Amino acid sequence: MMSPNPDSFPVTEFELRVTQTQALMHAQQIDALFFTTEAEIRYYTGFRTLFWQSPTRPWFLIVPREGEPIAVIPEIGAQLMQQTWIQSIHTWSSPHPEDDGISMLASLLANFSRIGIPMGRESSLRMPLSDFEELRQRLPQIEWTDASAVVQSVRQIKSEREISWIRKTCQSASAAFARLPDLVHVGMPLDAAFKAFRIELLNQGAEDVPYLVGGCGPDGYQDVISPPDQRPIAEGDVLMLDTGATCGGYYCDFDRNVGFGQVSSTCHAVYRKLYEATEAALTVARPGVPVSELHRVMAEVLDQTQSDVGRFGHGLGMQLTETPSNVDFDHTVLKPGMVMTLEPSYQYGERLMVHEENIVIREGAPELLSERAPEQLPLIG
Amino acid sequence: MMSPNPDSFPVTEFELRVTQTQALMHAQQIDALFFTTEAEIRYYTGFRTLFWQSPTRPWFLIVPREGEPIAVIPEIGAQLMQQTWIQSIHTWSSPHPEDDGISMLASLLANFSRIGIPMGRESSLRMPLSDFEELRQRLPQIEWTDASAVVQSVRQIKSEREISWIRKTCQSASAAFARLPDLVHVGMPLDAAFKAFRIELLNQGAEDVPYLVGGCGPDGYQDVISPPDQRPIAEGDVLMLDTGATCGGYYCDFDRNVGFGQVSSTCHAVYRKLYEATEAALTVARPGVPVSELHRVMAEVLDQTQSDVGRFGHGLGMQLTETPSNVDFDHTVLKPGMVMTLEPSYQYGERLMVHEENIVIREGAPELLSERAPEQLPLIG
Repeated sequence: MMSPNPDSFPVTEFELRVTQTQALMHAQQIDALFFTTEAEIRYYTGFRTLFWQSPTRPWFLIVPREGEPIAVIPEIGAQLMQQTWIQSIHTWSSPHPEDDGISMLASLLANFSRIGIPMGRESSLRMPLSDFEELRQRLPQIEWTDASAVVQSVRQIKSEREISWIRKTCQSASAAFARLPDLVHVGMPLDAAFKAFRIELLNQGAEDVPYLVGGCGPDGYQDVISPPDQRPIAEGDVLMLDTGATCGGYYCDFDRNVGFGQVSSTCHAVYRKLYEATEAALTVARPGVPVSELHRVMAEVLDQTQSDVGRFGHGLGMQLTETPSNVDFDHTVLKPGMVMTLEPSYQYGERLMVHEENIVIREGAPELLSERAPEQLPLIG
Repeated sequence: MMSPNPDSFPVTEFELRVTQTQALMHAQQIDALFFTTEAEIRYYTGFRTLFWQSPTRPWFLIVPREGEPIAVIPEIGAQLMQQTWIQSIHTWSSPHPEDDGISMLASLLANFSRIGIPMGRESSLRMPLSDFEELRQRLPQIEWTDASAVVQSVRQIKSEREISWIRKTCQSASAAFARLPDLVHVGMPLDAAFKAFRIELLNQGAEDVPYLVGGCGPDGYQDVISPPDQRPIAEGDVLMLDTGATCGGYYCDFDRNVGFGQVSSTCHAVYRKLYEATEAALTVARPGVPVSELHRVMAEVLDQTQSDVGRFGHGLGMQLTETPSNVDFDHTVLKPGMVMTLEPSYQYGERLMVHEENIVIREGAPELLSERAPEQLPLIG
């Protein structure tokens, strides 16, 4: 029998997450929250599995305004859910010919009159839309309301245990990036470089590498979300690798740029500009400051308000990207415990360069979780 | 600049996928299909990126009944989408303060009167529900209909190119499983065993390992979807590793069981029963046979109609699990080109054993993609 990692999270931490959420539910007169997505269900229960990769079965969680969360899940997950702190676990045999949990949900939700569900920015509905509509039809008395802000505001503030997982992941990735000069070289096909770096991340302590993208090309790259092709790395290329590795289910998210042989003075200048942009952000990332201010100071250094990336960083935690966003229209106020990426990008001609660091907002100066990038574009070979 | 793998798929293959889909749209009087999910967007466009890990931005694709697909995507994806066969690419700067693509979508969809969207079994809505409702309100004349069956029936039949990617992934995983006796041993912490196997999968040619779960315990395991803990493997344990690795974005999905030292005769007998169940399924997996028949013959050998797993296999391809399901109520008829897992499981007391193979339905006998598991439970040490 396998049990969840004993050093992951104590029950008190889950109780605190629920209590904080319930306080907001009281204030907003929400009777229960209804979740269908991995991050939210894991956040409130500790239920962690890669089985979410299979789209076949829906999973549900109800967080009432009073009392403990109620899991409504396929039987295949019962054993694992019983190892969490959750006491109220309702299961059905899934996949089911005509009722994949909907009757069970309807009877459990019938006692509530105002139910919150994340339906705003960054949310999705991980259950068949026809089943959700069936559920609404069966419960015509219920008012459904958007609970995105409730959940986001609780999840944005990380506990020290959560931060220590993210720090561990960042350290693994920093150690792997430090070995980049030994791993990649001119003439190496790009997909082989990605593979070598992915294995290095695992060897340096990452548990998984759900995200590894990059760009590579003469004097820079045009695209920052691609899988690699088989083109060999050439003299004069700039390579960017951007990774979201995980430890304990918590992500890092940062990138590093390297040049091969000689690269243009433009590349060096753009790199330096991006470095200075993160320096500027580090000086203003303090409790009480809105994230829009992080955007503003980076845009000022870069003399560009945005590139195709669309923002200059974001929240980070159980997901590769979380709220808030470093954009001019997001006025979320920074608080201690918020884990953020600083991710300025700069468009020059047809090319784009991205630089990224991970930080925690602290009283005073932020704590850097990623090992600070070098001040100048490093060169290999 | 990076370009998609040149040996991935020619334009003719995407054209065929669209043509086949449009024929079904004609038959069902659906004017356009509307997609929000990774697998469907990749299937029709070839757009492949791990950036889907970020929940921030929605991505949309419209497949009209006549003509070519229309991508409606965030600017960050424009460069990569331009490298696919898609000509009609509409982008907006995302995240956006108040309109994350909805006006653009509304104007592009306004010309259609009946729009299909996957809203049945196995589907989800990867966009904010409030945005979807806004879209429906802006287009009151449109009838929305479930298009799950349309898309599933086209995706279920794999092309030879798709099969060759799945075969490559299965071969990588088979090679990694063959090395298991060299990788794991009594006394090794389970998480280290998972890590060693994950790295071996990459070394044997897998591009990524999005799914790796397992179970381990004396005389068997109780849970088949867990991440590993740090408990050392002990004499008498049975270890099961189940992997969904990928090559070219196509999955394998199979497991292998091994015993350490001596295990009970019950374990050996259960293993043998599961082996015989897959043998029985291999003899009936022929074009024209409903998948419910695969379930029936396996259940007959096992003398159990189901375990907590809920089914005895499923479709496989761009996703770890796809339709159809090997259950008694799924009467989807097998056709050449369908890639299926045969996944019998057996409950004995509190324990459960799972065995899995991957096959392609062919004229005549199926082609085995995974290297056949040994007839008897293999022992290490």
